[in-house]
Amino acid sequence: MKPLDQGSVIPLYHQLKQRLDARIRIGDWKPGDKIDSENRLMDIFHVSRNTAKKAIEELVQEGSLYRVQGKGTFVSRPKFEQSLSGFYSFSRVLREKGLHPTDRVLEVKEVTPSESVRIGLQLAPGENVIEMKRLRCANDEPIILESSFMPKSVIQDMSVLYEVGKSSLYDLLDERYNVIVVRAKEAFEPVLIREGESVLLETEIGKPALLLERTAYDTNDQPVEYCISIVRGDRCRFYTDLV
Amino acid sequence: MKPLDQGSVIPLYHQLKQRLDARIRIGDWKPGDKIDSENRLMDIFHVSRNTAKKAIEELVQEGSLYRVQGKGTFVSRPKFEQSLSGFYSFSRVLREKGLHPTDRVLEVKEVTPSESVRIGLQLAPGENVIEMKRLRCANDEPIILESSFMPKSVIQDMSVLYEVGKSSLYDLLDERYNVIVVRAKEAFEPVLIREGESVLLETEIGKPALLLERTAYDTNDQPVEYCISIVRGDRCRFYTDLV
Repeated sequence: MKPLDQGSVIPLYHQLKQRLDARIRIGDWKPGDKIDSENRLMDIFHVSRNTAKKAIEELVQEGSLYRVQGKGTFVSRPKFEQSLSGFYSFSRVLREKGLHPTDRVLEVKEVTPSESVRIGLQLAPGENVIEMKRLRCANDEPIILESSFMPKSVIQDMSVLYEVGKSSLYDLLDERYNVIVVRAKEAFEPVLIREGESVLLETEIGKPALLLERTAYDTNDQPVEYCISIVRGDRCRFYTDLV
Repeated sequence: MKPLDQGSVIPLYHQLKQRLDARIRIGDWKPGDKIDSENRLMDIFHVSRNTAKKAIEELVQEGSLYRVQGKGTFVSRPKFEQSLSGFYSFSRVLREKGLHPTDRVLEVKEVTPSESVRIGLQLAPGENVIEMKRLRCANDEPIILESSFMPKSVIQDMSVLYEVGKSSLYDLLDERYNVIVVRAKEAFEPVLIREGESVLLETEIGKPALLLERTAYDTNDQPVEYCISIVRGDRCRFYTDLV
């Protein structure tokens, strides 16, 4: 192991951080692997505890590492990256990445729409909606908690929605109701994970998440789905090209 | 005041919420206004404390209202909405909305790039960068805390950057260095406001924020700026059209 450069203007913790980062990037340490303890890093690199602590701390803050109380520090799994350059379906995107999308439908019911659902779906006064709550997983890991609202006029038989576990919602809307979703509007806001969400998403209350508001339109430019998603911030990342 | 419909299937708290929401939307209550107290709502609408509480609580959670400890509940200011459909400059966007953008340059210094800055700016090994930290405000309200990293080869005289208060960074790069920024990549992640950030952004530690990572390119498709922004989640909202 090449020693750190004690005479460099680059602080030792920063040099150590770069070394650890490199071990992750070249796959020496893989996602889920436990990294060397502070004591071990102090021995190997001849640094103080503070230096080892600070290097690890920055990698934790940047999301490359995560701590498990009483167990140690581990290499994070890479986040799911989602491009906002075009219309996407979460389950199709996962499948393209070779991952296995599963949806757990938690609840399907008819509800009175809230003001935002009513405006989003351009509903007539008094028109009800079908709400489907589902937990969206990638390889059985919960990633997104989602509530989709659809006009009752579109979903004539709501029991069909329980098939969403097997098929994607958009495929189902196409096959059953001849409704083809072609575009969407999406808005993003950062929020904190709340109590009920933390249980379902298997994460902690107060962790950062994205609230995604989507309105999806069919080929007649009619809004057919208004959807509120809570996306785990530690597992997803959105990016776009601005030209 | 029309009474609530006690016989309706729509819960009373939901009816009350819609009434309060309507008063905000029609401008009866304006941003910054204190709304009626729970007691007053109970009197006016003949509802229980729980009903009044629940209606207010939902509007707080949705961001239409906010509470100030010991003072009452107030109408939120509308969030700044930023489209991700094309390349934008924060100061130009604010100006187009009739708002006055001000940038407070906090620090300009030469630094050794971190690994992500080095990759983002495609730097040669050993090449340093100029870091500019600034607080971006709209009508003097702090909205974004931003660190821009630019190659030293682009910024020949870093004192020029102190003029960013008066002119936008991109205008300055154009006028001084003939560097025209034409496109950018942006990535979004939800984070929590940290201690130092909370003081500058005049918000609380642990509040939700967006971490925006931007790489901006010039007409030769060279990365000229790598930028990390902390955007107040209670003041900004990003949206896009997915086609």
